[in-house]
Amino acid sequence: MSQHSEKRPLGIALLGCGVVGTEVARLLTEQGGELAARVGAPLELRGIAVRRSGRARGLDLDAQLFTTDAESLVRRDDVDLVVEVIGGIEPARSLILAALEHGASVVTANKALLAEDGATLFAAAEKAQRDLYFEASVAGAIPILRPLAESLAGDRVRRVIGIVNGTTNFVLDRMSTSGTGFTEALEEAQALGYAEADPTADVEGFDAAAKAAILAGLAFHTRVTAADVYREGITEVSAGDVASATEMGCVVKLLAICERHDTPDGEAVSARVHPAMIPADHPLASVREAYNAVFVESEAAGRLMFYGPGAGGPPTASAVLGDLVSAARNRLSDVRGVGESVHAQCEVLPMGDTYTRYHVAIDVDDRTGVLASVATEFSRHGVSIQTVRQEGRGDDAQLVIVTHRARDADLAATVAGLAGMDMVREVTSVMRVEAEPE
Amino acid sequence: MSQHSEKRPLGIALLGCGVVGTEVARLLTEQGGELAARVGAPLELRGIAVRRSGRARGLDLDAQLFTTDAESLVRRDDVDLVVEVIGGIEPARSLILAALEHGASVVTANKALLAEDGATLFAAAEKAQRDLYFEASVAGAIPILRPLAESLAGDRVRRVIGIVNGTTNFVLDRMSTSGTGFTEALEEAQALGYAEADPTADVEGFDAAAKAAILAGLAFHTRVTAADVYREGITEVSAGDVASATEMGCVVKLLAICERHDTPDGEAVSARVHPAMIPADHPLASVREAYNAVFVESEAAGRLMFYGPGAGGPPTASAVLGDLVSAARNRLSDVRGVGESVHAQCEVLPMGDTYTRYHVAIDVDDRTGVLASVATEFSRHGVSIQTVRQEGRGDDAQLVIVTHRARDADLAATVAGLAGMDMVREVTSVMRVEAEPE
Repeated sequence: MSQHSEKRPLGIALLGCGVVGTEVARLLTEQGGELAARVGAPLELRGIAVRRSGRARGLDLDAQLFTTDAESLVRRDDVDLVVEVIGGIEPARSLILAALEHGASVVTANKALLAEDGATLFAAAEKAQRDLYFEASVAGAIPILRPLAESLAGDRVRRVIGIVNGTTNFVLDRMSTSGTGFTEALEEAQALGYAEADPTADVEGFDAAAKAAILAGLAFHTRVTAADVYREGITEVSAGDVASATEMGCVVKLLAICERHDTPDGEAVSARVHPAMIPADHPLASVREAYNAVFVESEAAGRLMFYGPGAGGPPTASAVLGDLVSAARNRLSDVRGVGESVHAQCEVLPMGDTYTRYHVAIDVDDRTGVLASVATEFSRHGVSIQTVRQEGRGDDAQLVIVTHRARDADLAATVAGLAGMDMVREVTSVMRVEAEPE
Repeated sequence: MSQHSEKRPLGIALLGCGVVGTEVARLLTEQGGELAARVGAPLELRGIAVRRSGRARGLDLDAQLFTTDAESLVRRDDVDLVVEVIGGIEPARSLILAALEHGASVVTANKALLAEDGATLFAAAEKAQRDLYFEASVAGAIPILRPLAESLAGDRVRRVIGIVNGTTNFVLDRMSTSGTGFTEALEEAQALGYAEADPTADVEGFDAAAKAAILAGLAFHTRVTAADVYREGITEVSAGDVASATEMGCVVKLLAICERHDTPDGEAVSARVHPAMIPADHPLASVREAYNAVFVESEAAGRLMFYGPGAGGPPTASAVLGDLVSAARNRLSDVRGVGESVHAQCEVLPMGDTYTRYHVAIDVDDRTGVLASVATEFSRHGVSIQTVRQEGRGDDAQLVIVTHRARDADLAATVAGLAGMDMVREVTSVMRVEAEPE
């Protein structure tokens, strides 16, 4: 049937042999026959670059394959495809650039590098006429980048809303089910291995912001970097915020939101990461524990959702292998797959110019005229109120306000204005409200 | 940036101008600039084949484009890509074969034809070295075929469970929320436009079976036809079945299930369509109304779900356009995309040899020894019981039994045996139970 026996084998260099790299090496070895049938030629592992040699990795591989000299490995003439799963900016960037320059195609899971300096990498791939694939960089095993770039290529994406960080989703899910605060839920996540000892990249939203940049770039055919993404983590989310969400029929999620906007000058896009309340009957609300999901709204296709494990060795390796099969097939036919698409070159709006809704809770003095004064502060900034709920009396008097959509800068200015009012004792909770119910 | 102005335009022939064809024509016209940027060359509509000319279709198109002579249209030398959205076996098959023979690539939404005679079409595409793409044939706008064929190409899919027919999902959803029977729910679906005047293809499972054949073929790299798919519709699902499901913490869905099996002779696969109870906390359980979803379990990636609108003009057109952009890019580079993959050539098991679980409700005489006799009948067929619930007394005495997994043929034989027992007055409900809770 297949003609792969006639074709020369393709050489693979693997950079990094941690949780993901080990699984990539394992699948390359164990699924060799199937992969050869799917590619049309055998894939042969030429070398594995590691930081320190000699560590047992539970792999039944020739010890000769391991090297600490990644620089030489990516430049070998018998290497056609390079898999980069080291992570971080350097030496990953230099190694990818060297690989492309030397004529290899590259598969990477490196979201931080792509979001910081994708332009350099894509330019090198274009110049070398080689593939640079990166499905594994966003939402682990979930095929989302290829559908955005290829399946929806004839459609117009309007909005992408993703739960793209498993650690924060696990923490928020625990806060929601158990009623605990952030610190306790994070400790539980750490104990269970869902959060790192230093959880900064996850809980401060850096990881999700890098993914938002990648998603926005693909969805809107525009170059978006991590620096373009507004970022707010979940460290300030309180048990009270989560309880307020429940009262409103909502749940709190850390969302990566990429949107297309019509502006007087044409079109613009935005990308932002922050905690938000979403309706409990929205498909994203039922994404539990450390799972990921990406919700896409496009003009013709309507509302799509892609769901699955967002991290972990085997799921990420599955995404890497899918890219590797595509890149290998392209090498055999001497063609390139879909490259970077930035033809739209839309302006990227700052956070203040995006449109959001706020949920605001304030402790107020229990006296006549409070509501009128508060409402005046909203209208002074051009913000329209959707609902107001008064709770408690006396020292416990609280107003809970949900706004209509307004410029985020105007909403922020309103909150600042409220905080300065005499009759407002404290602004106890501010959180954006996103997504319409299904 | 893009160099599409230098490239010659690609000519498109559209076969069929119903709900989907009209949207394809509209998108080709309205999104012309964006499509050209993504493809690298303009896409030009050369002609639209219709059965009767002269019908207004709400499209702002040159009347000269419409023709009743599809045969000549697909053979025009200025046609590079043919979109077939006529449906049915003939004349669609002859037209697709003629188009491929003449050197055009083909995009089709025709699940019935692919499931009946895909082999002939794929052979023609292989011979002509042209693409035959069909994302729109399963689950409308949801990108599922490309992820199966490409994103998961380095993984091993073990099971695909799909809700791939919107009409039946709408009917079962209504039965579940309102407690009505099948007939009443179907009438409501027809009144709302979710079911055709003749609903046979949907409610008898023919539509889902064609899609199951296509999914199984892609997931397992094996040729599977509609004739290989066990098929049972939803016409026998009663309000009582739905109520039983609710009592068990389940919902009833019409599922298309494709599985890989380890057998003494190696590997085999199966594909089947039937109503089944699934746990209410399974991601597929929350797929409401006419939405579709496909749940995929693979060895490395784990559990993935793809969700979205499964039918309708714009969603289906979105899938067609995605394929069209890929096929057009391939034409420009003079390469082929991923073709049919049937290298595994697994045996397709008959239904009797698959493993399922049954939910069985029987009206029994209320006397000593009934349970022992019933249990003996199960064990006589090698079927192990998971739970038994006794309900009612006297003339209302009922046993509700859920089995462990067993050969479907043994389960069926058990039910036949029960029906023949003296103390069993009636087997009131038999339904398979699928999917583990999340």
